[in-house]
Amino acid sequence: MNMRPPPEMHRDRVDFDSLGAEIYALASELYPICRSITGPGVRRTLDVIGRHIDIERQWVPSGEAVFDWTVPQEWTIRDAYIRDPQGRRVVDFNRSNLHVVGYSTPVRAVMPLSELRKHIFTLPGQPDLIAYRTAYYTPTWDLCMAHRECQLLPEGDYEVCIDSSFSDGRLDYGEYLHRGASESEFLFSAHICHPSLANDYCSGLALLTVLARNLRSRATRYSYRFLFAPGTIGALAWLSRNEHRIPLVEHGLVVSCVGDGGGPTYKRSRRGNAMIDRAMAHVLSLPQWNGTVKDFSPYGYDERQYCSPGFDMPVGLLQNSAFGTFPEYHTSADNLDFIRPEYLARSYRLILEVIDIIEGDWTPINLSPKGEPQLGRRGLYAALGGDKAGGEAAMAMLWVLNLADGTHSLLSIAERSGMAFSDIAFAARLLHEHGLLADAREDPAGADASGGGGLEERPVSVPI
Amino acid sequence: MNMRPPPEMHRDRVDFDSLGAEIYALASELYPICRSITGPGVRRTLDVIGRHIDIERQWVPSGEAVFDWTVPQEWTIRDAYIRDPQGRRVVDFNRSNLHVVGYSTPVRAVMPLSELRKHIFTLPGQPDLIAYRTAYYTPTWDLCMAHRECQLLPEGDYEVCIDSSFSDGRLDYGEYLHRGASESEFLFSAHICHPSLANDYCSGLALLTVLARNLRSRATRYSYRFLFAPGTIGALAWLSRNEHRIPLVEHGLVVSCVGDGGGPTYKRSRRGNAMIDRAMAHVLSLPQWNGTVKDFSPYGYDERQYCSPGFDMPVGLLQNSAFGTFPEYHTSADNLDFIRPEYLARSYRLILEVIDIIEGDWTPINLSPKGEPQLGRRGLYAALGGDKAGGEAAMAMLWVLNLADGTHSLLSIAERSGMAFSDIAFAARLLHEHGLLADAREDPAGADASGGGGLEERPVSVPI
Amino acid sequence: MNMRPPPEMHRDRVDFDSLGAEIYALASELYPICRSITGPGVRRTLDVIGRHIDIERQWVPSGEAVFDWTVPQEWTIRDAYIRDPQGRRVVDFNRSNLHVVGYSTPVRAVMPLSELRKHIFTLPGQPDLIAYRTAYYTPTWDLCMAHRECQLLPEGDYEVCIDSSFSDGRLDYGEYLHRGASESEFLFSAHICHPSLANDYCSGLALLTVLARNLRSRATRYSYRFLFAPGTIGALAWLSRNEHRIPLVEHGLVVSCVGDGGGPTYKRSRRGNAMIDRAMAHVLSLPQWNGTVKDFSPYGYDERQYCSPGFDMPVGLLQNSAFGTFPEYHTSADNLDFIRPEYLARSYRLILEVIDIIEGDWTPINLSPKGEPQLGRRGLYAALGGDKAGGEAAMAMLWVLNLADGTHSLLSIAERSGMAFSDIAFAARLLHEHGLLADAREDPAGADASGGGGLEERPVSVPI
Repeated sequence: MNMRPPPEMHRDRVDFDSLGAEIYALASELYPICRSITGPGVRRTLDVIGRHIDIERQWVPSGEAVFDWTVPQEWTIRDAYIRDPQGRRVVDFNRSNLHVVGYSTPVRAVMPLSELRKHIFTLPGQPDLIAYRTAYYTPTWDLCMAHRECQLLPEGDYEVCIDSSFSDGRLDYGEYLHRGASESEFLFSAHICHPSLANDYCSGLALLTVLARNLRSRATRYSYRFLFAPGTIGALAWLSRNEHRIPLVEHGLVVSCVGDGGGPTYKRSRRGNAMIDRAMAHVLSLPQWNGTVKDFSPYGYDERQYCSPGFDMPVGLLQNSAFGTFPEYHTSADNLDFIRPEYLARSYRLILEVIDIIEGDWTPINLSPKGEPQLGRRGLYAALGGDKAGGEAAMAMLWVLNLADGTHSLLSIAERSGMAFSDIAFAARLLHEHGLLADAREDPAGADASGGGGLEERPVSVPI
Repeated sequence: MNMRPPPEMHRDRVDFDSLGAEIYALASELYPICRSITGPGVRRTLDVIGRHIDIERQWVPSGEAVFDWTVPQEWTIRDAYIRDPQGRRVVDFNRSNLHVVGYSTPVRAVMPLSELRKHIFTLPGQPDLIAYRTAYYTPTWDLCMAHRECQLLPEGDYEVCIDSSFSDGRLDYGEYLHRGASESEFLFSAHICHPSLANDYCSGLALLTVLARNLRSRATRYSYRFLFAPGTIGALAWLSRNEHRIPLVEHGLVVSCVGDGGGPTYKRSRRGNAMIDRAMAHVLSLPQWNGTVKDFSPYGYDERQYCSPGFDMPVGLLQNSAFGTFPEYHTSADNLDFIRPEYLARSYRLILEVIDIIEGDWTPINLSPKGEPQLGRRGLYAALGGDKAGGEAAMAMLWVLNLADGTHSLLSIAERSGMAFSDIAFAARLLHEHGLLADAREDPAGADASGGGGLEERPVSVPI
Repeated sequence: MNMRPPPEMHRDRVDFDSLGAEIYALASELYPICRSITGPGVRRTLDVIGRHIDIERQWVPSGEAVFDWTVPQEWTIRDAYIRDPQGRRVVDFNRSNLHVVGYSTPVRAVMPLSELRKHIFTLPGQPDLIAYRTAYYTPTWDLCMAHRECQLLPEGDYEVCIDSSFSDGRLDYGEYLHRGASESEFLFSAHICHPSLANDYCSGLALLTVLARNLRSRATRYSYRFLFAPGTIGALAWLSRNEHRIPLVEHGLVVSCVGDGGGPTYKRSRRGNAMIDRAMAHVLSLPQWNGTVKDFSPYGYDERQYCSPGFDMPVGLLQNSAFGTFPEYHTSADNLDFIRPEYLARSYRLILEVIDIIEGDWTPINLSPKGEPQLGRRGLYAALGGDKAGGEAAMAMLWVLNLADGTHSLLSIAERSGMAFSDIAFAARLLHEHGLLADAREDPAGADASGGGGLEERPVSVPI
């Protein structure tokens, strides 16, 4: 077979080892900050991200209505502890910010253990771990601690302190836009409200920050928007301020829990067959990924908001292990030991593969559709006939030629043939270079409206 | 979770133990009567049913054409026996009415055993049982007896007597109508032509009689028609006299063999995806039912006539064990020991669940479709965040809200979510009470024509 | 059951034993001829076929453009050998024409073994077999020999001779048309370019020749075209000269490798659900065939050309073992011992079954669609009721009556019922004879356009 080696793919130029280390380092920097849906932790997190990419800082004042919701007051937490009868801090916010239930009202009191227990939440099934709990929108106070330690507390009077305060302030979020040739967007979304949890969610924040920064050097068809916002209320705030932009979002991913060794797991958008769903399902069906694809359900991260019936956006959820399925989830065991540079790098690579599909899909039209064109005289085919195997590269060319009737995009061809999109795209590029294929966008007369992505224009300079 | 307990469902008010006993008692009363497709046995059976519900008695005279058929003469059977050479009745209609093949012509003769054997039908594989056989529309006579007894008959001359007669008379059937808010109907159909067979078919007659009587106290959207008619010719007679009503039948069930411990088994209508098919398939997919759903086939009970291509009615067949699959089928072993009150009660409960779906389906429209509405401030959601499980009730609310776009009825939502219709319906009711949902029938502008049942009007007084 | 035995089917009149022997004998006659895509071997093969059926000989001159291709010069091979240092012919075209790679350029030289080896192709994994190789469209020369013999060659100078020549000549092919009542065609295609390979492809040539001859005595609805043409370039030549006929081809089969004991295997056309695909899938799903159905892929025989996007013809591929999956494929082991008369007869019978479906499909309309018609009084139904099993013949009648609404052809009814087409067709014929069915073509008002085949007219004299 007389073929040149495949052209370098974007992801082949990437040094995944150092990328994984870089994402891990950024996650480690974000980990100690005590975040909530509002307050100084969110702003400090956006500061850190802002040192890597030029995010736009946005905010919405406390009390402003956001669809059915209202932006809450800012919550500031300075300290929280329980002192036992001997004066020892048996719970200490400075050791772990998970000890205080998010949005707890301030308290400073002395009470007997029996009374105090009503305000202590433990995980009897995981007795050494501290749970992560919040109490947004409900005026109450609670603390979390390890069940085993709680069991050992002696009777007596305890001093309990939550040094928190509420004030009219704002809800902060940040966004970053990588401009492509088109205004059509690929939205990446990460929530920014979790305190010291490494997989859920420092991993996603760090990965998307590095991805956004690296995209700067790449000319793309689509524009890429990165949204770093507190869960639920933050996504709703962005949606309410950007309703006019929503039709521009052609693909979207919520990215979470991308630092552990499970999965990968993709949850489809509500539509179920959006291009992001098809691209993800295709990649995860390849033997090297062997991932899991789940149908949409309305419980999860901010895809709940994006996929609400009033928006019905093509946004899915990418994770390694699915939330709620790993024992470290929402506990103090979701720490920096739980996530690993190689898993972060693997997730990054998976996202790059999907971007390559979204960017690289087009609808070929066979210019020699009656019978097969003679690949041999173009040096595209084994010179010696009678091979028992057709060869993968030749098969990819035959599939492209056969389905290049203007109704199949490269992704459709990959789906029907069962071959990897990258092999199909390489074959199509070769055939295009040899004048055997036209691009339906250049010659729309031959193309069916159903093929390819939704982009009208396509930059000449961008590799297919 | 701050939720009130679910509202009492119709079926929760039912005492199934006493219901099962009541149905069994009625089946026992019907069992001894010797029925055929015409004659006094049918009328006596309708008399018994008429003591429980106010059925309308209908009849068609012998000789009248019914589509491709003709109503046969009435057949009256008074006695039938075989006397052996010693004068003993070795076959005796008074011991079991299965001994005589239905519609046998009269005979009174003495013949040698070799000749007699040509008129005796036995079951060599079930040597102690008497088979149930009929010979409608063919002038012949035959008797059934246990194979083992037949084998023991000594040679000699036998006296055989079938004291039957044919006369111009009528084909009888009965129907009962429970009027609902709409003229649209749910048809229940049971055949009334089988002699002493308990499961097939006294169980169905008894269950439907009790159901019809109990419906009197329930305000319903649909009207419910109960048809008690001889198999094939009776169903055809009803169809021929009610062709104008057929379009009103939106759902239908033939109910048979509902007293044994197998199944439940549902056979789809010819359409395959009528609402009755979807409702049955949904209920039987729930773990507590774990029933079997079979595709339509044109062999069976009167669904054969309802689903003939000229009618193509949405009528399926509900059974416990499927006919022909249990060894007692069409033998003397299908007696009152074979059916049990608890199985009759279970079938009754299953039918009530399906009625609850047919009555309770509606198409919700989310009045807060952009993002999720804030369930927490309405007391509809766990006050303490961070739960590992979302909770079944919360999931049901999220599913309803997510799919309440006017194209999904509650049954569609149950199907897509995999949750029980009753959970979905409860969630929808709660959300409706809190002003989060509209009903597409009240606000048709927001609803797609494909959603919900076919009823135009809906009574205000009826619970959703 | 009072039914007459089924009418004799076409295939029941066939003596398959003698047919298998006849096909085998013809394959044996074709086997020794050295064919290529052009040249005297092709013409001699057409001569042999022409002694059985009255084929039209067609040709295209060398140099003529055929779509993207050009008809090559004729290749004539007279002799080819290698003489070892002792003068012995260690490779000899006269012993096996596989020794010379097809379209090798002439050579006559003496060279050391090391140089010669560059032109010898062997199969190390099958060391006793000679491979079949070609080098069309590339000026080169090569020889094939058994790997084990090649390994034993002593060092020294070897004389190599390929006595071939190229000349402006022509590409030959032959076609035979059996005219039916309609101009619509069923195309059978076999390639004629392989040298001494028995299964691939003498089996197909011989089978189709005998089939074409035997069809002469059968009045058919469709016209049947048999094409015997060199692979790829021959099919393309036929397509280029018959573009106006392509829309007439309603069904097509490439027939290959039909003499071995594997399979049967059917590869769908590109359309996937053409009538030939449905008929083949139906027959192969029957327990007596238990064959394999594969989705279309663009690698294979001349279905590649017929199914190219510019034609997209409804042409599938029928084989026993699929090409490339049996070890004898494209080696000297694909000889006359590898194919067997009984396998050839089996393939013939399978094709007849498919022809019976294509010929015998029609769309029945139930003339008594309201309820079931009374089969009993027409002698079509068991006289004695209460049978536990409905009986296969009765089931077939019930299915036909139930689905005879003008939207289901007999093939559709066979598909939905899971019963054999032949049983459904027999039942339909019986019901038609009893006046219970009309034929949608005779009474088009009642028929839906989607039913049945595409034939407009239908000869009265042809059995259904």
